[in-house]
Amino acid sequence: MEASMDWEQIFATRASRIKASEIRELLKLLDQPDIISFAGGIPDPALFPAEEFKAAFADIFRDGKQDAALQYSVSEGYAPLRVWIAQEMAKVGVPCSAENILITSGSQQALDYLGKLFLSPGDTALVTWPTYLGALGAFNAYEPRYDRLDDRSNRSADHYREAVAAAGGRIKFAYASVDFANPTGETLNRTSRNNMLDLAEELDIAIIEDAAYQSLRFDGEAIPPILALEIERKGDIEATRTLYCGTFSKTLAPGLRVGWVCAAQPVISQLVLMKQASDLHSSTINQMAIADVAAKGFDQQVKKICAAYRARRDQMLAALDAEMPEGVTWTRPEGGMFIWLTLPEHIDGADLLALSLKTQKVAFVPGRAFFADGSGGNNIRLSFSLADEATIGEGVKRLGALLRQAIQ
Amino acid sequence: MEASMDWEQIFATRASRIKASEIRELLKLLDQPDIISFAGGIPDPALFPAEEFKAAFADIFRDGKQDAALQYSVSEGYAPLRVWIAQEMAKVGVPCSAENILITSGSQQALDYLGKLFLSPGDTALVTWPTYLGALGAFNAYEPRYDRLDDRSNRSADHYREAVAAAGGRIKFAYASVDFANPTGETLNRTSRNNMLDLAEELDIAIIEDAAYQSLRFDGEAIPPILALEIERKGDIEATRTLYCGTFSKTLAPGLRVGWVCAAQPVISQLVLMKQASDLHSSTINQMAIADVAAKGFDQQVKKICAAYRARRDQMLAALDAEMPEGVTWTRPEGGMFIWLTLPEHIDGADLLALSLKTQKVAFVPGRAFFADGSGGNNIRLSFSLADEATIGEGVKRLGALLRQAIQ
Repeated sequence: MEASMDWEQIFATRASRIKASEIRELLKLLDQPDIISFAGGIPDPALFPAEEFKAAFADIFRDGKQDAALQYSVSEGYAPLRVWIAQEMAKVGVPCSAENILITSGSQQALDYLGKLFLSPGDTALVTWPTYLGALGAFNAYEPRYDRLDDRSNRSADHYREAVAAAGGRIKFAYASVDFANPTGETLNRTSRNNMLDLAEELDIAIIEDAAYQSLRFDGEAIPPILALEIERKGDIEATRTLYCGTFSKTLAPGLRVGWVCAAQPVISQLVLMKQASDLHSSTINQMAIADVAAKGFDQQVKKICAAYRARRDQMLAALDAEMPEGVTWTRPEGGMFIWLTLPEHIDGADLLALSLKTQKVAFVPGRAFFADGSGGNNIRLSFSLADEATIGEGVKRLGALLRQAIQ
Repeated sequence: MEASMDWEQIFATRASRIKASEIRELLKLLDQPDIISFAGGIPDPALFPAEEFKAAFADIFRDGKQDAALQYSVSEGYAPLRVWIAQEMAKVGVPCSAENILITSGSQQALDYLGKLFLSPGDTALVTWPTYLGALGAFNAYEPRYDRLDDRSNRSADHYREAVAAAGGRIKFAYASVDFANPTGETLNRTSRNNMLDLAEELDIAIIEDAAYQSLRFDGEAIPPILALEIERKGDIEATRTLYCGTFSKTLAPGLRVGWVCAAQPVISQLVLMKQASDLHSSTINQMAIADVAAKGFDQQVKKICAAYRARRDQMLAALDAEMPEGVTWTRPEGGMFIWLTLPEHIDGADLLALSLKTQKVAFVPGRAFFADGSGGNNIRLSFSLADEATIGEGVKRLGALLRQAIQ
């Protein structure tokens, strides 16, 4: 056998920014049955509307829709699904038409496309510290710089401008996970959303609003999406700069890979062209099945999963209150899938994970991967979505024991 | 309503390279029932293995696989499908393992990922004149230059090197659709494939082998994939520089969006990371359904569609022989979906299409979109895959009448 190629020297410069993520490696752990996993943001399959999907797929073949379901379809997405989503968007304060909706293969693809659409190498993306690591992964391929988006620091638009002027490129967008964010579980309040709009106006940049967990509110009052607040200000979605990303992955099923972008038509048109060039369209049959299941019982499904996840969150918060030693703090999310722990400064989340897997068989995600600057080592993310209540209690108890040891 | 944003000034530079394609606009014509369409490279839905897919989806839910089918899955793809594909690759001279296979959302996504992996702005991609316009679309997003890959011109490696030295960047890969190519219907013979390998060796670049139509051979002898010829030379897939792109879109069903890349593991590993960052994974349930249908009757399905498409190709060639005026020439493909017509120099394919839609109600694809330099105006692509034999005869007759008029 001859020597193999030196691939690194022929890859594009962006390839060096595309690296293995900790979440990816952690997904592999889920196959080990004796691990208690608080790791991935994985919905509980026991809560999937499996009977409804079974019927939806069967109906497609029974009702003579199989030719359309198995055939190529348009890049913007399946028309009845776009119409249904537009109606749902209206219910949360975003009056729009199907022409404002692009169907994507999960909201991860929406983040990839928006990075691709806006970021030239050296441009700046504003992200929170911490932020969804999949957003950093998607954007990284387009070789941006990051600057810190922090409502509480009261940085002025000029301050952001000065930072980017020193670095080169220009600021293109601010990205935020708005409800029960991954990884913190925290929600941007109305004031923070309005502040973000003000900042985007001043900087003349777009806002990417990641609403992946929006439907998973267990208590407290819903806050309108940033896109809704902007429409209130401007009167029409066509005048807005906010690009809303939604998904069925957390509500119906992630395995079908169906999400969407809702935005002004000039952006949707450009994204449609991008989608055509990158994968033609999302699976036709999956879009049809999602449209059917959503139309027949979306609200009921959301109610069901919120009840289940609420109980698990309550159990995890109660267990944390009981088991965590002094010096550990955590968030108290009103929904979603995650609780974010801050450990004493000297404890590193990645080291703790290695130890935990070995001695306690409890998995979680170390915090550093969620920070664009590699800080946040003394944080860990716990997900309460996948384990039952008894297991949550046991897992947090083991974690508490481990942390008591580590802190001493 | 306030003025809307000036989006153009905030988009990345690549956005200006992502434009509407003629194929996309043409797909919309298929909704008009009175049009005879020789346009899109669309499989005939009457030939889809619909009963087999119906059973496959039902079995997933009946056999307790629904939790896995609806859940997140690994970025590299569904393991049993990767194993099946690796076995099929061995049958065409590419011994490899599942670790050499990445599942993509159709081969369009493979082209997008390979463009993303190799092309920095200003790098050069070698493509045939004409070439698959979807490949140009995918690569364009990464802002390459193109140079002409032409076996018959006997350009030396030095000649290619000189061209790129003048332009800047470097040559990254040669792309070719190898069997019954889109749009010409022509097949690269063994000598041409070996020449391409020699050139790639000399230039130290990759080869992207687009084998989308490989299974659709009606007659003549199969030619080994470039990847197989390279393994013959080097002894092992790990030593190769050829990246083979396959798809189930032309054989089983395009609407499920399942294709693959077969290549050396360092490339697959990097593509897996890219897929994770861009859409996490392809639809789990669709990969399972494809794996089931493929395992149970792939060869039989290929036999069925080849018989049907062969009859249509024969009918179209016979009709062209009977109906085309002097000055029009065309290819005689041994498989696939396309015949490529060269018209007299003064006839423009796009003008002819406009006239044809108006007066003859016959659709096809004008040739210019398939040329990276915008030449080829006097070509048109006809697809014989979608129309029945009587319709093919009638459509070509109308086209012949139109061309006789145009040539006079």
